Amino acid sequence: MEKRSLFFISDGTGITAETLGHSLLSQFENLQCDSTTLPYIDSLEKVQHAAHLITQAYEKDGQKPLVFATLVNKDIHARLLQAPCVLFDFFTPFIHRLEDELGMHSSPTAGRGHGVHNTHVYNARIAAINHTLSTDDGLNTTHYDHSDVILAGVSRCGKTPTCLYLAMQFGLRASNFPFTEEVLDSGKLPESLLRNINKVYGLTIQPEFLQRIRAERRGGRYATLAQCQHELDTVERIMRQNHIPLIDTTSRSIEEIATKVVADLGLKRQVV
Amino acid sequence: MEKRSLFFISDGTGITAETLGHSLLSQFENLQCDSTTLPYIDSLEKVQHAAHLITQAYEKDGQKPLVFATLVNKDIHARLLQAPCVLFDFFTPFIHRLEDELGMHSSPTAGRGHGVHNTHVYNARIAAINHTLSTDDGLNTTHYDHSDVILAGVSRCGKTPTCLYLAMQFGLRASNFPFTEEVLDSGKLPESLLRNINKVYGLTIQPEFLQRIRAERRGGRYATLAQCQHELDTVERIMRQNHIPLIDTTSRSIEEIATKVVADLGLKRQVV
Repeated sequence: MEKRSLFFISDGTGITAETLGHSLLSQFENLQCDSTTLPYIDSLEKVQHAAHLITQAYEKDGQKPLVFATLVNKDIHARLLQAPCVLFDFFTPFIHRLEDELGMHSSPTAGRGHGVHNTHVYNARIAAINHTLSTDDGLNTTHYDHSDVILAGVSRCGKTPTCLYLAMQFGLRASNFPFTEEVLDSGKLPESLLRNINKVYGLTIQPEFLQRIRAERRGGRYATLAQCQHELDTVERIMRQNHIPLIDTTSRSIEEIATKVVADLGLKRQVV
Repeated sequence: MEKRSLFFISDGTGITAETLGHSLLSQFENLQCDSTTLPYIDSLEKVQHAAHLITQAYEKDGQKPLVFATLVNKDIHARLLQAPCVLFDFFTPFIHRLEDELGMHSSPTAGRGHGVHNTHVYNARIAAINHTLSTDDGLNTTHYDHSDVILAGVSRCGKTPTCLYLAMQFGLRASNFPFTEEVLDSGKLPESLLRNINKVYGLTIQPEFLQRIRAERRGGRYATLAQCQHELDTVERIMRQNHIPLIDTTSRSIEEIATKVVADLGLKRQVV
C-alpha cells in the first residue's frame, strides 16, 4: 500500500489541525501516512519553507500531499494554495458562517486557539495538576474533600493516566485511590472516601489484560491471573455495595475513560 | 452582552468538536458562551435527547444555539438537523473530499477518533507517563539516558505540567530537572544532564510572575523578588554557557511551550 504524505500546518500549535485531521483519517482503514506537523507558520518566510517541504514530498511521492491547515492570515493561506497539495482549510468556511450567524467580525489573530486566554483559568489548571499529583496513588486521602473526582481501582488499571488527563484537559482535581491488600482484605473503604462517595468512580479491567500489564512490570504473585481475578472480583463487589459507577478500561483510551467519567458524574469542564 | 448557547455533539468523546469549536470561537472577542458537551451520541434515542436540550436552550434564549458536531452516522446527523440550531458539521464536507482524493471509501465507525487504535502506541503512551512521573522534579536523574527530552529550570516555572503534557499528548519521555540551591551555587550541571545535553531545553519566566506564583505557594526568601531574580539570572547564564535553548513561559500555555520544545528539538510524536 502506498504511503500518503500529510502535513498539519498552523500559525499556532497545530493541535486543532492535528485533532480534526486525525479524526477524519481514522475513518479510513489501512491508510498509511507519513505526517509532518509545522507549527507557528506565521510569516511569509515560514510558509515559503513549508511550501518547499510540500513540493519535496510531492516530487518524491509523485502525488500531491494532503495538507490540513488552520491559518488565520489570508496572505499566508494564499501562498500555501500555490504549493502542489490538496488543501483542507479547517478555518475559513466556518469562520465566515460564524461571522454571519453571530453578526460579529472575527478579529484574526494567529495562534489564539491554544494560547493563554485567562490567567484565572490557567492557574486553575495548574492547581488541578498539583492536586492530582499530590493525591496520586492513595497519597493524602484527607485532601479528597477538595477533589472533584476520585478514581478507585486495583493497581495498574489506568487510574493515574486518567487522573492526569482530567487535570490537564478538564482542569479537574482528580485523585486516585488504589485498592491495597489491606483494603481488599477488610472489604471496607476508608472514611475519607466514604465521606466523598458521590465523587468516586470505579475503574475495572479484564483480568487477562491486567495480568499482562502487571507481568511486564514485575512478576510474583502480583502478576498471577488468580491474584488479578481475586482483586477485581473483590473490588467490583465493594463498588456494587457502595453504588459506585464502574467502567471497564480494557479497550478504552484515556480520552474515552475521562470523557465517560465527566459525563456520568455531570462534572463541569474548568478549562477550554 | 448576550450569551450564546453552544453545543458540542459527537458520537465519540467530543474532543475533536470541542477543539475546532473553541479554536474558531477564540477568533471572536468578547463572545460569551454557555457551552454543553454531549459525548457518545450514538443512537437515535440519544440524539432525540440532545435535540430536546437544544430546543430548551432555543426557547430560553430566543435564538438558535450553535452546534458543533462530529457525527459519523447519517441518520443521527439528519435528526440533529431538525432541531432548532445552527449546525456546524465538522465531518461530512471533509470526508467526501478525502474519499475523492484518496480514491477510498470511508468506513463510518462512530467514536473512532479518540479510541485505542493500536496497543503498541497505547503502551508507549503509558510508559512515557510513567517515565515522566518517575523523573519528575529531579528524581532518578540516572534515567535521563532513556528520556526523549529534559526540561530544566527554577522551581515553579512550568516544568512539571509541560512534561506531563509531552508524555500524555506526544508520548514522549519527558523528564524535568530543577535548579536546586546546590546546583545554583556550584554553577555546574550534573554529569547525568551533561551526558544528555542535546535533550535539554531550558524554561525561564519573568521574575515578577515567578514571585507571584511562589508567594501563593509559600512565603520566605523563596518567594522574594530578589531571590527569583538571582535564580533566573544564574540559570540563564548556565544555559547560555551550555548552549541550551531557552523559552520564556510567562504568557505561554502548556500547549504552546510543549509544541515549541518538540519543534525546536525536532522530536517525533509517538502517539496520535
